[in-house]
Amino acid sequence: MRNFRILLAYDGTRYQGWQRQGNTDNTIQARLEAVLSRLLEQEVEVNGSGRTDAGAHASGQVASFRAETELPPDVILRRLRQHLPDDIGAISLAEAAPRFHARLNAREKTYVYRVWNSESPNVFERRYLYAMPRPLDLARMREAAEYFLGEHDFMALCANRHMKKSAVRTIRAITIERLGEEIRFTVTGDGFLYNMVRILVGTLLEIGEGAREPGCVPEILASRRRETAGETAPARGLCLTEVKY
Amino acid sequence: MRNFRILLAYDGTRYQGWQRQGNTDNTIQARLEAVLSRLLEQEVEVNGSGRTDAGAHASGQVASFRAETELPPDVILRRLRQHLPDDIGAISLAEAAPRFHARLNAREKTYVYRVWNSESPNVFERRYLYAMPRPLDLARMREAAEYFLGEHDFMALCANRHMKKSAVRTIRAITIERLGEEIRFTVTGDGFLYNMVRILVGTLLEIGEGAREPGCVPEILASRRRETAGETAPARGLCLTEVKY
Repeated sequence: MRNFRILLAYDGTRYQGWQRQGNTDNTIQARLEAVLSRLLEQEVEVNGSGRTDAGAHASGQVASFRAETELPPDVILRRLRQHLPDDIGAISLAEAAPRFHARLNAREKTYVYRVWNSESPNVFERRYLYAMPRPLDLARMREAAEYFLGEHDFMALCANRHMKKSAVRTIRAITIERLGEEIRFTVTGDGFLYNMVRILVGTLLEIGEGAREPGCVPEILASRRRETAGETAPARGLCLTEVKY
Repeated sequence: MRNFRILLAYDGTRYQGWQRQGNTDNTIQARLEAVLSRLLEQEVEVNGSGRTDAGAHASGQVASFRAETELPPDVILRRLRQHLPDDIGAISLAEAAPRFHARLNAREKTYVYRVWNSESPNVFERRYLYAMPRPLDLARMREAAEYFLGEHDFMALCANRHMKKSAVRTIRAITIERLGEEIRFTVTGDGFLYNMVRILVGTLLEIGEGAREPGCVPEILASRRRETAGETAPARGLCLTEVKY
């Protein structure tokens, strides 16, 4: 058995997210497994670095899979590209160390959340942007973001109410930039709970609009209750950009 | 009757081009006319600066229309944005001089043609790029492009075999740039024949691949025969970026 590591980009608009639910469902993982299994004439299981939500995107998702094959990685990559739909792209594929596992070995992830902060529509990037034309105060959002940095129990930012495992995570960096009419949030951490980035961004947006104060963040975190945080920002603005090992 | 000028961007992927064919067809012009007619409660005819092909895009299409209305332009713009589909964007709308006509007064147009010159897929911009992974020699294409500059009879680059009017046009500039894995052609001229930019780019691509010599261009132009030029490059890579008056 050889072990492979693959770097993926996808436009998640028409998918039910990364994670396979049945065997032939409309998820990135199921599509990838179906193509690889046919290509390599064996049942292939693909492990992603983590789930991405229905409608969310990735420019740097990492996945690993094991297979019995003599084919060199560049041949597998070329065939994979021929058979994947045009909204799932295989960027690179290489042989990995025997024990490499894309989820278990992930050390750090970066997500980008893109807000289109303008009355004027962005036709060409509409699938990758959350259009929110109301004025946003970046200074307020940056002040609030400081409170999320470091190690915290992020249960209040978790959409899964039945989660029993630890909700303690470390956020290493949050940057908020204005790039023309776009406001871009970049969040890096050691791991993220279900919907955590979208709830974090949704909370910052409410603060940026003036509906909440930056100082509300410590109370939200301390409450550990989802309903104290802001709305979940729409999936279309979210993109997993990098996974570090 | 007041006269209005509107600046439009559209993702042409799912449309049969700019130009209306019936009254309720799937063209940009028909969609725009339907929305404006409903909004302004009168039959509105919209004149674009020119047709764009089925599947081609625009980031700077200009159109004009006349209507009897008391509404200020910013109100019309806001309502238009609310009712247009998300792949047609109204960038701006202003009252124009009474005799302004978007097609008749156009002096100069710029088109951009984008080629994705890589084995690695571009998932996020796939609708706006023609993916052509084979190596392309920019120096050869630039050498060939020089022959197209200036005033010529461009009949050989016209897909309409029954055109009876003059095929004389002036191309003012052609630039060919490599931007990472993208090769971008920018063509500016006083007007273009049916499919002219796509046939011009298709011819340059064959020269860039080495299938033809740069010196073949004068013979193509002199022949005035469509079959002497290269293949028509796919519509998806084409975008009308600017119209000058």
